[in-house]
Amino acid sequence: MSSNSDLPTIAPLPSWNEGTIKATILDFVRRVTTEGSPDFVPVPERIATFDNDGTLWCEQPNYVQAFFLLDRVKAITTQNPELAEQQPYKAILEHDKDTLATFGKKEIVTLGFATHTGMTTEEFETIAKTWFDSAQHPRFHHLFRECVYQPQLELLAYLRAYGFKTFIVTGGGNGFVRAIAENTYGIPPEQVIGSSGKLKLERQDGKVTLMKLPELNSFDDRDEKVVNIGLHIGRRPILAFGNSDGDLAMLQYTAAGDGARLALLLHHDDGDREYAYDRDFKFSPLREGLEAVPKLNGGHIVSMKQDFKQVFPFS
Amino acid sequence: MSSNSDLPTIAPLPSWNEGTIKATILDFVRRVTTEGSPDFVPVPERIATFDNDGTLWCEQPNYVQAFFLLDRVKAITTQNPELAEQQPYKAILEHDKDTLATFGKKEIVTLGFATHTGMTTEEFETIAKTWFDSAQHPRFHHLFRECVYQPQLELLAYLRAYGFKTFIVTGGGNGFVRAIAENTYGIPPEQVIGSSGKLKLERQDGKVTLMKLPELNSFDDRDEKVVNIGLHIGRRPILAFGNSDGDLAMLQYTAAGDGARLALLLHHDDGDREYAYDRDFKFSPLREGLEAVPKLNGGHIVSMKQDFKQVFPFS
Repeated sequence: MSSNSDLPTIAPLPSWNEGTIKATILDFVRRVTTEGSPDFVPVPERIATFDNDGTLWCEQPNYVQAFFLLDRVKAITTQNPELAEQQPYKAILEHDKDTLATFGKKEIVTLGFATHTGMTTEEFETIAKTWFDSAQHPRFHHLFRECVYQPQLELLAYLRAYGFKTFIVTGGGNGFVRAIAENTYGIPPEQVIGSSGKLKLERQDGKVTLMKLPELNSFDDRDEKVVNIGLHIGRRPILAFGNSDGDLAMLQYTAAGDGARLALLLHHDDGDREYAYDRDFKFSPLREGLEAVPKLNGGHIVSMKQDFKQVFPFS
Repeated sequence: MSSNSDLPTIAPLPSWNEGTIKATILDFVRRVTTEGSPDFVPVPERIATFDNDGTLWCEQPNYVQAFFLLDRVKAITTQNPELAEQQPYKAILEHDKDTLATFGKKEIVTLGFATHTGMTTEEFETIAKTWFDSAQHPRFHHLFRECVYQPQLELLAYLRAYGFKTFIVTGGGNGFVRAIAENTYGIPPEQVIGSSGKLKLERQDGKVTLMKLPELNSFDDRDEKVVNIGLHIGRRPILAFGNSDGDLAMLQYTAAGDGARLALLLHHDDGDREYAYDRDFKFSPLREGLEAVPKLNGGHIVSMKQDFKQVFPFS
């Protein structure tokens, strides 16, 4: 759809409360998709980028990928019992908080590589998909892949109905997020940009595969998110949605383009229905964003408490 | 379209001669798009990757990007006359073949960075698009961007009509090829994977831009083409089309997947209408491909002379 006459007749975004934010989103989409409007944007340039953790799905009490890593450590040490006696695995398995508290980048990288590399991309995909089919959120008792925000699912579909191409730009691993993005968000693997490790082509017994190496290629966070938008998309988004300072560069880059822009930051202020955290949250700080985003062209803070009528699909 | 009943009633691929290759292509598309067929492939998995130089457009008597580089050297040295007296610029400007013959990787990299970096991605896009609007092929006297293969334009459109997503995977610079891919091939920037330099986010005077740095990120050739397919697409193609040993890894990777596969190698054997070159061509060697590709699952050599009824749109 590219013109106003194609607007659906059912009320859009039913899980968003009426208010400034919903009105702003609807108005933005109307302006950029109405031919003849001074803000009209041709279909191929309707690029929308979404962070994943805390923007599309719940990132508390820890990143979903951290739960995956923990379960993978259990699986790996079951297969290789000698590892269970070594650090950093031992502390993980024994919930040894004192030792875990001493862990720095080295231990985290070791755990990340041990659980995410040394297999082909297709083997990893199978492992991740199998895990997602049973792993549950500890508080909501639904599959992690169901702990996604209903208003965002509606927004993604709404944007696509108006000719937008929707991308995920996440600090999470690209293979991990790709394993669920298509079924969960309707976003195919090639529109998922994430943190990545190096890959190596291997030819063996007639098989040709991509091996995941224990070496970082890109940590897709902060400025690197924009660098990867340049590498993968090659076009400045007109809409970006994030929830932390790790997304601020992407919102700034989006907002700094010409014409109508929308740069949204989800504020987790709903401890009853989800979680409430910002300045005090150690691992995904939101120190600058709450002040910086409203100053951007098209920049707005989205309040989960006020703007989300419904949080999860199951609630 | 996903089923046979949607087949267009006009004859497909009119610029391809009847024969084994055309029949193979039509049969492959029929098999993977016919629901109930043992080879049926769901729409999101219909990934087709095409090399660009020598596969979609003419790469003789030199890469199009080499002509661009030459013109940029002229522009840069006009703006900075002192550079015109220095190597490697001097030899380029004076067509000093003896000195040019001594050039190695260092000089080529210097020229590449001098002409392709030190500006934002958007500034480069403007420069490249402006150049493409006037730069002509020295033999065919048409714009370089018109020296594309009519049969391939038809194949790209045909595949897309059957639900394929078409990608370019090129050794050429990603920004350079993206500047023409959408208008020329109907392939948007986010579906162009190319060689790339490092980028850096810069914030200045309220502008937020991506600066092109003089540092290589990825030389998208041979195995690296597959590595970048893993990074950018995250899914194994079911069809790949190349023309040199630089594409062989991509064809091998494509052919090695399960189910129906098509791995095509264009052989430039038509000196009358285009160029004839393979084993003797220094810079884009085709030493292994002619023997290796026919041994692949779904592997075929395409003869420009026999299989292309028409070569260029203007011929």
